[in-house]
Amino acid sequence: MIAIGIDIGGMSIKGAAVDSNGRVYEKFSMPFVKGEPGEETVRKLAALVKEYIASQHLEDKIAGIGIGCPGTLNVAEGIVEYSNNLGWNDLPVAKIMNEILPYPIRLINDANAAALGEAKFGAGKQYETVIMLTLGTGVGGGIIINGKLYEGNQGKGGELGHVVVQVDGEQCSCGRKGCLEAYASATALIRDTKRAMEQHKESKCWEIAEKLGKVDARVAFEAERAGDEVGHQLVENYVKYLAEGLMNYFNVFRPEALILSGGIANEGEYLLSRLRAYLEPRHYGFQGTPKVELLVSELGYDSGKIGAGALFF
Amino acid sequence: MIAIGIDIGGMSIKGAAVDSNGRVYEKFSMPFVKGEPGEETVRKLAALVKEYIASQHLEDKIAGIGIGCPGTLNVAEGIVEYSNNLGWNDLPVAKIMNEILPYPIRLINDANAAALGEAKFGAGKQYETVIMLTLGTGVGGGIIINGKLYEGNQGKGGELGHVVVQVDGEQCSCGRKGCLEAYASATALIRDTKRAMEQHKESKCWEIAEKLGKVDARVAFEAERAGDEVGHQLVENYVKYLAEGLMNYFNVFRPEALILSGGIANEGEYLLSRLRAYLEPRHYGFQGTPKVELLVSELGYDSGKIGAGALFF
Repeated sequence: MIAIGIDIGGMSIKGAAVDSNGRVYEKFSMPFVKGEPGEETVRKLAALVKEYIASQHLEDKIAGIGIGCPGTLNVAEGIVEYSNNLGWNDLPVAKIMNEILPYPIRLINDANAAALGEAKFGAGKQYETVIMLTLGTGVGGGIIINGKLYEGNQGKGGELGHVVVQVDGEQCSCGRKGCLEAYASATALIRDTKRAMEQHKESKCWEIAEKLGKVDARVAFEAERAGDEVGHQLVENYVKYLAEGLMNYFNVFRPEALILSGGIANEGEYLLSRLRAYLEPRHYGFQGTPKVELLVSELGYDSGKIGAGALFF
Repeated sequence: MIAIGIDIGGMSIKGAAVDSNGRVYEKFSMPFVKGEPGEETVRKLAALVKEYIASQHLEDKIAGIGIGCPGTLNVAEGIVEYSNNLGWNDLPVAKIMNEILPYPIRLINDANAAALGEAKFGAGKQYETVIMLTLGTGVGGGIIINGKLYEGNQGKGGELGHVVVQVDGEQCSCGRKGCLEAYASATALIRDTKRAMEQHKESKCWEIAEKLGKVDARVAFEAERAGDEVGHQLVENYVKYLAEGLMNYFNVFRPEALILSGGIANEGEYLLSRLRAYLEPRHYGFQGTPKVELLVSELGYDSGKIGAGALFF
C-alpha cells in the first residue's frame, strides 16, 4: 500500500510517497514562506503533490495523503485551528487540498506523526510504550502507549514541549514562560548562542557561524568539540534543561524507551552520551525504577512523513 | 463484594471495609511512628486489621486486602521497595500481613489508589480520561486513560509530583531540585509558611498557628481569609506553582477532568476559584483546546481506601 506523507515545518514543507513497509520513495519539498496567506501555501503544496504523483506514475495507487502540521488541529474536519509556528488560523487544509487532489486527506500533529513513524518502523519498533520528543524549531512530542498513539481529548494532548520547567523563565511561543520548548528547541539554543556570542567576542562560535553562514543549533556543539569554553557552557546548559525534561517524562510515563528526534537529535551519540552522563548519577529519576532506553530517531527527518503516511496503513 | 482498603501515610495508617458500590464501612486507624522498623509497623497493622475484621463479623466475606503506599512498589510481589516518606526499604508487606491474615494482599501506589477510587466512585465517575493530583505530605498522581489506570513500565510511572517545574529550585524528597512536590505539597506550604513567619513577626499566621496548635498547611489560607498580607502572598505563590503544574498536565494529557485530592484540596471551592482565576486568562494552556474540568475529590480522605479495596472488585 502507498500513501503520501507530508511534513509541514516553519522553514519548509517536505513529502514523499511511503509504503506499508516504511519504505520512502523519491522526496519533494518546497520552502515555507513566512507571512504568505495559508490558502496560497496550501494551494502551491497541492499543485506540487499533484505534479509529484504524476511524475511517479502513482495516480491509481495512492490510499491517501497524510499531513503532519505543528499547532492545534481539528483532525476530524482537516482544519489547522491555530499554529503559532506557521501563522495559520482556522485554515481548512483538507478542503483546499481536495480542490485538486481526489484522495482522502488526513491531518496529524507533526510530532505525533514523527512518533507514530518511529514507533511503527523506526527506533521504537521493538517497544510497546514509547515517548518521542522532537527537538526542532519547537519541541513537540508523541505518546505511544501499548502500541497506540495517545492524543488526549479531541486529539489535543501530547504537547510535550509545553510543560513549564522553569516558572517565570524564558518566554515561550505558546504564551507561557519557561516551557521545555523555550530551553530545548533549536530556536532556544540559537537564542542562547547569539546571546553568548554577543558577550564573548573571543569565542570560536563566531568563526564557526561564519563557516556555516548563520548561527544555527550546530554552532554551540561544533564550538564545544573545538574546545571552546563558551560552546561548552552552552551545551552544558542545553543538556541540563533537556535532561531535566526527559526525567520528568520518565517519572510521569516510565516508558520503555524515549526517542529524540528533530534537528538537534542529529548530534546523535554525542548528545546521548552527554545526556546519559547527566541522567545516570540521578538514577534516571528514582531508585528501583526500570531504566528508560534513550534513543535517537532512526528515520531522522523521514519519521514525520512516514508517520503521516502510516495513518492510511 | 467486600474488601479491606488501607491507606498508609507518613502520619497515620487508615483503613476500612469497602464494598463494590463504593460504600465505606466503619473505619480504623493507627499512628505511623516515624523511625519504627517497618516490620513492626506492618505487624501492628496486621493485628489491628484482624481485630477489625472480627469486630465487624466479616471473616468470611473479605475478598482481599488492598494497601495503598507511597513510594516505589513491587506490586507483583507485594514489596515496598523504597519509600522516602515512610523510611521503608525492601519491606515484604504482603508476606508479613499474610503471617496472620489469610486473605489475598495487593499493594498499590497510594496516589494511584486514590485516583482509582475517585475515578470509579467519586468526582471522576462520568469521565473516561482523568488525572488525579494528591496534595498531601507529598504530591502524588494517578492517570486514568479510557477508564483504566495507567501505571507505566513495571507499575512505576504516574509519579506526577516528581516533575521539575523549577530547575535548580527547592530541594525535593526524591533527590531532584524543583519538583512540583517541592512547591505544591502540604510540606512545601508549611516550609514556606514557617519561613515567612520568621520574616514577619507581625503576621496573623502566628495567632492562627497558635490556635491550631501547629504550623500546618491551613495557616496560610486562614491568614489570607483574615486579610493578612503574608498569608495572601503565601497562597498566591502556592496557587501559581500548583496552577503551572496543572497546566503542564493539561498540555501533556488534555484529560477531560483533573481532580485535586489530599489535605490541601480540603480548601475546596476556595482553592478551585483561585486556581481558575490563574488558569482562565491563560486559556487553560492553549487556544482552541477543550477545557479541562477542575474538580476536588468527592470521597476526600476515603478515596485511597476505596481505590485500594477496588483492586478486588
